[in-house]
Amino acid sequence: MIDSTPLLRPNDSAVAAVTAALTRQFGNRCVTSAAVREQHGHTLTWIANQPPDAVVYPLDAAEMVAIVKLCAAHRMPVIPFGVGTSLEGHVNAPLGGVCVDTSMMKAVLSVQPEDLTCVVEPGVTRKQLNEHLRDTGLFFPIDPGADATIGGMTATRASGTNAVRYGTMKDNVLALEVVSPAGEIVTTARRAKKTSAGYDLTRLYVGSEGTLGLIAKVTLKLHGAPEAISAAVCSFPSIKAACDTTIQAIQIGLPMARIELLDELQVAACNRHSKLSLPEKPLLLLEFHGTTAGVAEQVETFSAIARDNGGSDFQWATKPEDRTRLWEARHNAYWATMEIRPGAKGFATDVCVPISRLAECVEETKRDLDASGLIGPIVGHVGDGNFHVQPMIMVDDPEEIARAEGFLERLAKRAISMDGTCTGEHGVGQGKIKYLEAELGPAALATMRAIKVAIDPQGIMNPGKILAF
Amino acid sequence: MIDSTPLLRPNDSAVAAVTAALTRQFGNRCVTSAAVREQHGHTLTWIANQPPDAVVYPLDAAEMVAIVKLCAAHRMPVIPFGVGTSLEGHVNAPLGGVCVDTSMMKAVLSVQPEDLTCVVEPGVTRKQLNEHLRDTGLFFPIDPGADATIGGMTATRASGTNAVRYGTMKDNVLALEVVSPAGEIVTTARRAKKTSAGYDLTRLYVGSEGTLGLIAKVTLKLHGAPEAISAAVCSFPSIKAACDTTIQAIQIGLPMARIELLDELQVAACNRHSKLSLPEKPLLLLEFHGTTAGVAEQVETFSAIARDNGGSDFQWATKPEDRTRLWEARHNAYWATMEIRPGAKGFATDVCVPISRLAECVEETKRDLDASGLIGPIVGHVGDGNFHVQPMIMVDDPEEIARAEGFLERLAKRAISMDGTCTGEHGVGQGKIKYLEAELGPAALATMRAIKVAIDPQGIMNPGKILAF
Repeated sequence: MIDSTPLLRPNDSAVAAVTAALTRQFGNRCVTSAAVREQHGHTLTWIANQPPDAVVYPLDAAEMVAIVKLCAAHRMPVIPFGVGTSLEGHVNAPLGGVCVDTSMMKAVLSVQPEDLTCVVEPGVTRKQLNEHLRDTGLFFPIDPGADATIGGMTATRASGTNAVRYGTMKDNVLALEVVSPAGEIVTTARRAKKTSAGYDLTRLYVGSEGTLGLIAKVTLKLHGAPEAISAAVCSFPSIKAACDTTIQAIQIGLPMARIELLDELQVAACNRHSKLSLPEKPLLLLEFHGTTAGVAEQVETFSAIARDNGGSDFQWATKPEDRTRLWEARHNAYWATMEIRPGAKGFATDVCVPISRLAECVEETKRDLDASGLIGPIVGHVGDGNFHVQPMIMVDDPEEIARAEGFLERLAKRAISMDGTCTGEHGVGQGKIKYLEAELGPAALATMRAIKVAIDPQGIMNPGKILAF
Repeated sequence: MIDSTPLLRPNDSAVAAVTAALTRQFGNRCVTSAAVREQHGHTLTWIANQPPDAVVYPLDAAEMVAIVKLCAAHRMPVIPFGVGTSLEGHVNAPLGGVCVDTSMMKAVLSVQPEDLTCVVEPGVTRKQLNEHLRDTGLFFPIDPGADATIGGMTATRASGTNAVRYGTMKDNVLALEVVSPAGEIVTTARRAKKTSAGYDLTRLYVGSEGTLGLIAKVTLKLHGAPEAISAAVCSFPSIKAACDTTIQAIQIGLPMARIELLDELQVAACNRHSKLSLPEKPLLLLEFHGTTAGVAEQVETFSAIARDNGGSDFQWATKPEDRTRLWEARHNAYWATMEIRPGAKGFATDVCVPISRLAECVEETKRDLDASGLIGPIVGHVGDGNFHVQPMIMVDDPEEIARAEGFLERLAKRAISMDGTCTGEHGVGQGKIKYLEAELGPAALATMRAIKVAIDPQGIMNPGKILAF
């Protein structure tokens, strides 16, 4: 009989039994040192570190099955771990348990160039995959910034800079193998591009943040590397002018590969960090993919729209080294931000709104930052209506933390009130559980809970994420 | 206490009680005549008609809620109905029950041109929606052939001719309101283009074929009408040559809007039906969308690939009336097929394979048709690896039906053995339940069943579809 009462922290003897069994099977691939456990708790941003009891490094799906079966037998939490770049406490272990680190499952199992697909293990990172694909003429476009693992990106429904053209993980995962909470391997789909064969289990697991099972294998869509790429930066007199340019370009169907907004504070930080001399005004960074003629046409169309909205100081680049220089500001934005206020930690967050509300949402958010006495640069994947704010906070000052938390709550609710979401790409983790009901209502939450209980009746899979205990 | 034993056909007194209550509330919008009930059972293809006990026509979501609550109280099946063009018995009522016909919920509730979104009731048909959008410069691309309802297309995860460019319903539904089996309204997402806010309930309901709830409202993505459209037909010496052309065009990333294959039998039927004189050889029908220059470039690139594969007899058209003439063959293919063998009924089916296996799968299927003594034209959305076969069968001949069923089973298993699916777009309904386990394995089926039971513990929502009782 399965115990479906709320999960509690396992007692010491259960932890000892599981750890001993794991050590017997995995030897030094089961680690219980405090440093490694802490490194596998949440380390980014403001959420407190809650380390697991043990960290284990499986080599393949069969070993994942063994770990899950053992944990299921002891009702022990199981927390999947990629490279730990998630931002909402996804990898914390609030009840302890076993962290399953996928860093030894790094094989690109197969590539099918004719089908534009590949099959990878969850620990493969996106850069590793693209390195592997380099001679095929294909690439995997999803780019959340960090060199995250494909497993982690799948689990959080990641996206990033070029989702505006290539979609998010939900659009680029074709099929999964998932180790269920009972230790069965669930195959969600086959390799056909389309299917209407039953419930869309693939999309159910994408974004489920490890709460329904462990991702053991991922079949991905790939894309042909574009014949031509052109990058650009362009300054605007106001956030609104930059957003309006974006809206108009999206509306006429311009197939931009990337369109990123940096506010003046972020531009200033990037200038300082990367020794650039960009005008310290709202900036759009762009990338166009296509045929040579197609890219030229896109550039011309975009330029006309930007100029109509007061865009100036255009810089264009088609050569890789020049593109890199232009994009340097964006790629180093995180580090540049860190220098704005030495000693402070960034409370990274993201929201997403319908694009028609984007300028309004960003502007209100900037006013709120000012009124709250907070310093927080804004960077956005604005083609999707998605933006990030990162207030820089002294984490030893409880009053400042409270002010930041108040700001984050108003931001989430502002996005929701504009028919948007409290998270466009970071996920719920621990940090955004409290906004889900305001966003989706009690019936949706009850449906999610019903699904969680049906698939994971013991509640052992990544407890305390997405849904409260 | 909810009764979760297997659902049985409700007894006569339960049927009488529900019908009486519906008649009290809905008056002549509750119909029990044999003709209307039979019209709402499955009428297309070979699956026998199983009419519901009553048909009711709600005007809005609140009335849907009332119907579902009444049925839930009497453990009475609830079967949603759009226009009845599904092909695998989705609208049959094997245990009787109440058919919820959405044809009086036909409002386009709102259009947000700036966001490229709209919100519609489930009974809106795709042609009605595009008519409504005509002056906005936007369109809704998904085209399964029939003028199906948006609710029905959502429920079956429909796609069709231009999915190769615009995706399927899973890619174009942004959010849903669904009446749960307990009569609650579940909001699956808000109107932001991306979200990582919890389980992807939107995608869970898309393709769930009415087995998890009634779709009451659909938020759709729209697309900008292309500046230029060009259509073409092109003949090939073999199925393989046509498929190879398709594969190569997809691989280099040519953004074709439509690429359809007709085999020689289908071309002959279309010539006869539409008084055309196309070469009776495998034919590709194509459509390109983009800027004027972009379309010209696509056409040139495609032509070179086609010629390399022996393509000939090109006909190009950019004017709407000429495009219509070229596409006439495709649009009338269903009716043309009906004339191949007067008195016969078509056993319409669809499978989908990775595009690298497409030529092989189509060719083996043609050999199987010949060996089985069956006449069945083939039409395919080949850019997605998806094709249809429609053996023409005398339904009063049990031996011929058995032969056709054997063929359909071999076809489904052939697609599965090539890492494909038994259905790319028609859905499972009643007809393909028997293939799901071979395709996805017992653990996936168990997961689907667990979800079904969790969300619909009484089993009243469209029983006997996707999963066996």
